[in-house]
Amino acid sequence: MANKDQTDTERMEKIVSLCKSKGFIFQSGELYGGLNGCWDYGPLGTELKRNVKEFWWRKNVLEREDIVGMDGSILTHQAVLTASGHVGGFSDPMVDCKVCNKRYRADQLDEIPTCEKKAQLPKGEDKSCELTEPKEFNLMFQTKMGASADENDPNAIAYLRPETAQSIFVQYKNVLDSTRLKLPFGIAQIGKAFRNEINPRNFTFRSREFEQMEVEYFCRPEDGLRLTDEWLEKRLEFYSEIGVPREKLHVLDIPDEDRAHYSEKTYDIEYDFPFGQQELEGVAYRGAYDIGKHQEHSGKNLEYFDAETKERFIPHVVEPSAGCDRTILAVICEAYDVEDLTKEGGKKDERTVMRFQPCVAPIKAAILPLLKNKPELVAKAKEVKALLQPHMNIFYDETAAIGRRYRRQDEVGTPFCIAIDFETLGEEGPNGEDFTDTVTVRHRDSMEQERVAISELLPWLLARIV
Amino acid sequence: MANKDQTDTERMEKIVSLCKSKGFIFQSGELYGGLNGCWDYGPLGTELKRNVKEFWWRKNVLEREDIVGMDGSILTHQAVLTASGHVGGFSDPMVDCKVCNKRYRADQLDEIPTCEKKAQLPKGEDKSCELTEPKEFNLMFQTKMGASADENDPNAIAYLRPETAQSIFVQYKNVLDSTRLKLPFGIAQIGKAFRNEINPRNFTFRSREFEQMEVEYFCRPEDGLRLTDEWLEKRLEFYSEIGVPREKLHVLDIPDEDRAHYSEKTYDIEYDFPFGQQELEGVAYRGAYDIGKHQEHSGKNLEYFDAETKERFIPHVVEPSAGCDRTILAVICEAYDVEDLTKEGGKKDERTVMRFQPCVAPIKAAILPLLKNKPELVAKAKEVKALLQPHMNIFYDETAAIGRRYRRQDEVGTPFCIAIDFETLGEEGPNGEDFTDTVTVRHRDSMEQERVAISELLPWLLARIV
Repeated sequence: MANKDQTDTERMEKIVSLCKSKGFIFQSGELYGGLNGCWDYGPLGTELKRNVKEFWWRKNVLEREDIVGMDGSILTHQAVLTASGHVGGFSDPMVDCKVCNKRYRADQLDEIPTCEKKAQLPKGEDKSCELTEPKEFNLMFQTKMGASADENDPNAIAYLRPETAQSIFVQYKNVLDSTRLKLPFGIAQIGKAFRNEINPRNFTFRSREFEQMEVEYFCRPEDGLRLTDEWLEKRLEFYSEIGVPREKLHVLDIPDEDRAHYSEKTYDIEYDFPFGQQELEGVAYRGAYDIGKHQEHSGKNLEYFDAETKERFIPHVVEPSAGCDRTILAVICEAYDVEDLTKEGGKKDERTVMRFQPCVAPIKAAILPLLKNKPELVAKAKEVKALLQPHMNIFYDETAAIGRRYRRQDEVGTPFCIAIDFETLGEEGPNGEDFTDTVTVRHRDSMEQERVAISELLPWLLARIV
Repeated sequence: MANKDQTDTERMEKIVSLCKSKGFIFQSGELYGGLNGCWDYGPLGTELKRNVKEFWWRKNVLEREDIVGMDGSILTHQAVLTASGHVGGFSDPMVDCKVCNKRYRADQLDEIPTCEKKAQLPKGEDKSCELTEPKEFNLMFQTKMGASADENDPNAIAYLRPETAQSIFVQYKNVLDSTRLKLPFGIAQIGKAFRNEINPRNFTFRSREFEQMEVEYFCRPEDGLRLTDEWLEKRLEFYSEIGVPREKLHVLDIPDEDRAHYSEKTYDIEYDFPFGQQELEGVAYRGAYDIGKHQEHSGKNLEYFDAETKERFIPHVVEPSAGCDRTILAVICEAYDVEDLTKEGGKKDERTVMRFQPCVAPIKAAILPLLKNKPELVAKAKEVKALLQPHMNIFYDETAAIGRRYRRQDEVGTPFCIAIDFETLGEEGPNGEDFTDTVTVRHRDSMEQERVAISELLPWLLARIV
């Protein structure tokens, strides 16, 4: 039997391969050799991502009176990131090889690497890189904006935001003024962020371009620690609702020496990926740090005025910050299953099944007429399709044998297959039953089948795909 | 009476001001003087944008069997944009002032500008800029990626995509392989794109960061022209459905000399903005150009194989490409109205009302208990809120007089206000009616009111907000 590491590596390879072949995730720029650390979502991946983001938005914005959304620009004013400390401090220690020019993260280097230029040297000669002293390398992507003819004009520098949080902090006053919210309240955002990771790895897990789902929750200073604990619980519940169960998650209470200096409390939520236990989300109590910094740097008054107590103060912030792509990868890893259906003495029979929670499954139901050359079956199937399509993402398939079509839907995680057969059209059931205008619903996980009346089908499905 | 230009300018100023004060759109980095050409959507703007994008996605992906979605990375491999022609040719002609270093678009310069350095010169001396010959200035944002220690390593250059289209073209084969689609079929994408506009202007209309909603519709060469016309009609219908009526749109059939050399047909859809007639969308028949270029540059076979006719060929492409932020700006401009409600001989009474189509309105319904100091009214209102909240974005407000709360909702375009009053709790109506467990629904546009039973309220609303 293979050891655990080997099995996990194989499992991850199979997941990556399925993601490409079924259209969940492709490498960006693959046609030209690929762009390291960047990924494109294919048709099914895009629907999966839409569902996860929508579910997060529903729970964290639409269902909450105290939280509103925003959607900030990716290009970010240099002054914003100077104030936040990113321009000065958002860096990793790097060493360069003076001979081959390759760059490495000093803190990830266990041994001196082989030099690419010296690699061809005769045996016995030293082929090791000649490394410089570690030097800080900023992780932000920089670009030039505007039409300044001066190549070195400092006003022309802009950054791709390294986190969505800062756009919330710098707009918090505008949001407050336009909404009349009172403490405690939150501002939520889903959007892209960018970090020039030296060593992108583990599929989409450590990418250079990624999407975040963040709430900045503003509160009175005395409520910060309690709310941090409350947010942690809410976030664990969220993962469980989208199919990442509590027992596969690990909560790390980050010790004093590892927390950012301004944070009194930080929890990391980690998931057991096949490639190891890795962070999905941080829930950090950031105190008054960010708003305080922007007040200091902008010279504008960013205090909150409490109309009841007549106090003015910088609100404190609790930040649950989730990685959207990481969450999706966890959902995919958790859903992936290969089930052995071999009957005793029979031919080997395995099925690959993506056991997505219905709320995030890219396709909710597949409509399958038993045969494509029977116009009555096809017509009835199209009727059922027209009934469901306005309400959910459905898939219509009339090719191949029905069993094979079921298996195809298993592979992409469709929770319900709806077969239109001769009983639907009025033929008697095996025991003389009247199944007119009912369909066979086949459940993905149990593979069990039941008959549902077409008139009941929409509410039946709606109740099961929330 | 003011002339039309003046009225339009004032109208636009009022719209921009309302967008900020009500939380639709803020300038990015405003706290630090603003980042030119970049905008942040506030709470209501974010919901409006979500609704427009969702409606587009529903019409162009979910309700179509022949179109699937994708979501590509913003960071783009240099080779992709070299093949597409953007690296070599995506530029505007620029002139620089040799004295003050300011840069101008040569084709937009009507007269020689005043030089910023010479501005203080004594009267009579020449204060004009001394301009260079026009030079091509590439509009793409460039950044450095990876950890190359070599500042000039050409492999380290990546671009922010200048259009979403190219990520579709370079993944078209992967999408085809993972979906078993057959011609004609489309790949749709909503996502950000970036252009270093020299002169961003007209609020969000000409921005440096913007979102596109594009379909690349692949077809047999002989179907291209017909499908271009069909797409034009579909797109006009879309605008009408979200509140931009046909009579405010202008279709330009772009003449030969103004079309891209590879396009046999291009329509522009323009809208009457207060600042002039400007483009919302282009519907372009791009022929085999893009896929052909990527086949040539990547050296890979990108032909489509037609299983029925056994032909292999590069599919042709029809591209309806809409600007999402422009569409939202058109929706906002179209919705904005100031209505004079002054009664004869009475005090001047105006209301500002955003007449959004219910399908895109940021808030669908506001729940308003008549008085906040009557616990029974508040409790009933919260009940109604709990009933509706899982199904739509609602707003709860118990402050101020009911009339004022109605007007506040008019300003943000909420189509329905739901008042919970004493009749709801069982008090007799003015003519002795029994209104127990009904609410007053007030219509935004007509300001008319009607009573609806709470048990009927959810389906009543759902039927009206689609």
